[in-house]
Amino acid sequence: MRDLDNSATYHLDSRLLRADLKNLPGWYERLGETYPSPHTVEGYGEGWWAAALAHDWMPASMPISGTHFVLQGGFPLGRGAVAELLEQVFEGRLVRFGQSEEVDLTITPHPLSTYRYLMSLLWATGRFDEAARVERAMGEALQELHIDQPTDKNPAKQLAWRLVERTPIWVVSESYTQLAAAAQQLFARIAGSLSVAPPPGALEFYATALEARHEQGDPLIAVIVGEDAYTRLATEVLASRVDAVVHMPASSGGGVLAETLVRWYELAWSAYYLSLLYDRDPVDAEVLTRLRENL
Amino acid sequence: MRDLDNSATYHLDSRLLRADLKNLPGWYERLGETYPSPHTVEGYGEGWWAAALAHDWMPASMPISGTHFVLQGGFPLGRGAVAELLEQVFEGRLVRFGQSEEVDLTITPHPLSTYRYLMSLLWATGRFDEAARVERAMGEALQELHIDQPTDKNPAKQLAWRLVERTPIWVVSESYTQLAAAAQQLFARIAGSLSVAPPPGALEFYATALEARHEQGDPLIAVIVGEDAYTRLATEVLASRVDAVVHMPASSGGGVLAETLVRWYELAWSAYYLSLLYDRDPVDAEVLTRLRENL
Repeated sequence: MRDLDNSATYHLDSRLLRADLKNLPGWYERLGETYPSPHTVEGYGEGWWAAALAHDWMPASMPISGTHFVLQGGFPLGRGAVAELLEQVFEGRLVRFGQSEEVDLTITPHPLSTYRYLMSLLWATGRFDEAARVERAMGEALQELHIDQPTDKNPAKQLAWRLVERTPIWVVSESYTQLAAAAQQLFARIAGSLSVAPPPGALEFYATALEARHEQGDPLIAVIVGEDAYTRLATEVLASRVDAVVHMPASSGGGVLAETLVRWYELAWSAYYLSLLYDRDPVDAEVLTRLRENL
Repeated sequence: MRDLDNSATYHLDSRLLRADLKNLPGWYERLGETYPSPHTVEGYGEGWWAAALAHDWMPASMPISGTHFVLQGGFPLGRGAVAELLEQVFEGRLVRFGQSEEVDLTITPHPLSTYRYLMSLLWATGRFDEAARVERAMGEALQELHIDQPTDKNPAKQLAWRLVERTPIWVVSESYTQLAAAAQQLFARIAGSLSVAPPPGALEFYATALEARHEQGDPLIAVIVGEDAYTRLATEVLASRVDAVVHMPASSGGGVLAETLVRWYELAWSAYYLSLLYDRDPVDAEVLTRLRENL
């Protein structure tokens, strides 16, 4: 295994993802314009999680007036056409973030783009204080997570070591909206690794899905992110069913959105370190670029 | 391995889940009353999928008047309290399905209960024709799926054989709302087996999540359910990355809801047969009953 505290290890990172990770707090477009309310939002591809988070305060369904945001990341698969149709009947403003000819704000495909979608959306809807809280909390978290922070003081490096040659099952506090699926995506895109997010009704799933596992090979590790009644019960249920349980304690302050993004940021760094431990360049598969060109 | 065409195999099924599966089309409460519209619905625990399906025509957020349905299956974890609070401020009617003292319709916990939540909801909102289409389509599908239908003519038995000692990854046509997560739950509850549902932005996930897999043990099988532009691309991406690919062809007629339920019903039968192939009584873990008693 590579040594995460030796700078030579990082030569493997050919596209300098470590720089993108380090520069992430603050790396987004501050739109000069606040769009008229009411605001609604939908997202797909890389934009799905930013939209899911925003649904805690902005609905998905279009109003008659105001502004409807479309976060159209990744593979459109015809969904761009729906937005175009809507544009013809909608009396308000339709604002698109993503990558294509007709977008209002270009956000290039990237494993960390979900942050940029979210922050630009906060600015476009006048939520500057919320954006500042998220940015500050992530900047503080960064001090513990970056490559110069040695393993014994770096929770992301420590988590990466625990995940080596295990398949993670994400157990996420209910206040962190859909972070389990976002984690599943981060570990695929950055570490090339498979992990399991539970369906809704997760407790029943944890209690039953691992019963026939003795037939199978991979050791599983439950990663508990945050703490509430649900994660406590899930930990109890999973303890005897998986190879290991690891806790990521709840972070402090900044409100629930900032906390959610900090947990996501920690997981992104862990995925980065895990990729290096697997002796693998932490970049997207080239197949993604090829797929995009063919669509 | 057990012989699925030998009736002795079914002695293992101590709770007669085969009878519940066979009687399922039509096994629900036909409510005598149609509740005042507008109708809205939320669901959690075992009720989550029925609510997700209904969101294609009924919103989640409460109107000022009308009827709000709460499908409160499984583990409430305090969410029942939210419904009680709502009841105090809501001017319309609040109608609860599930298992507790104050529900309007009792639906006992069961791996197949999602069907009963859905069908009773269709009746309670006056969608009798839709309910009849779903029931008819499932009744027709049953002819190919039940235990007396031999393996060479039974798609559910055939799928079960393909899944033995493999971990399924669900690739589901976009028209079947959240069927991947529902399948994940069926295979946990009925077969005691782990499977993987992708996050939103699934194509990027399939293209990247299996890159580091050569380090690991389990053979994966992609189960393609239905056919559209998305499943075709996903099949192409996954073909070289998994141990096997199996297709469940799109079924015919009855509309998208009936088709979705038919696919779910086929998967439920497959999970049942898989459990028997694993020499395992196809029942819920007793831990579920114990957990419910402790909440």
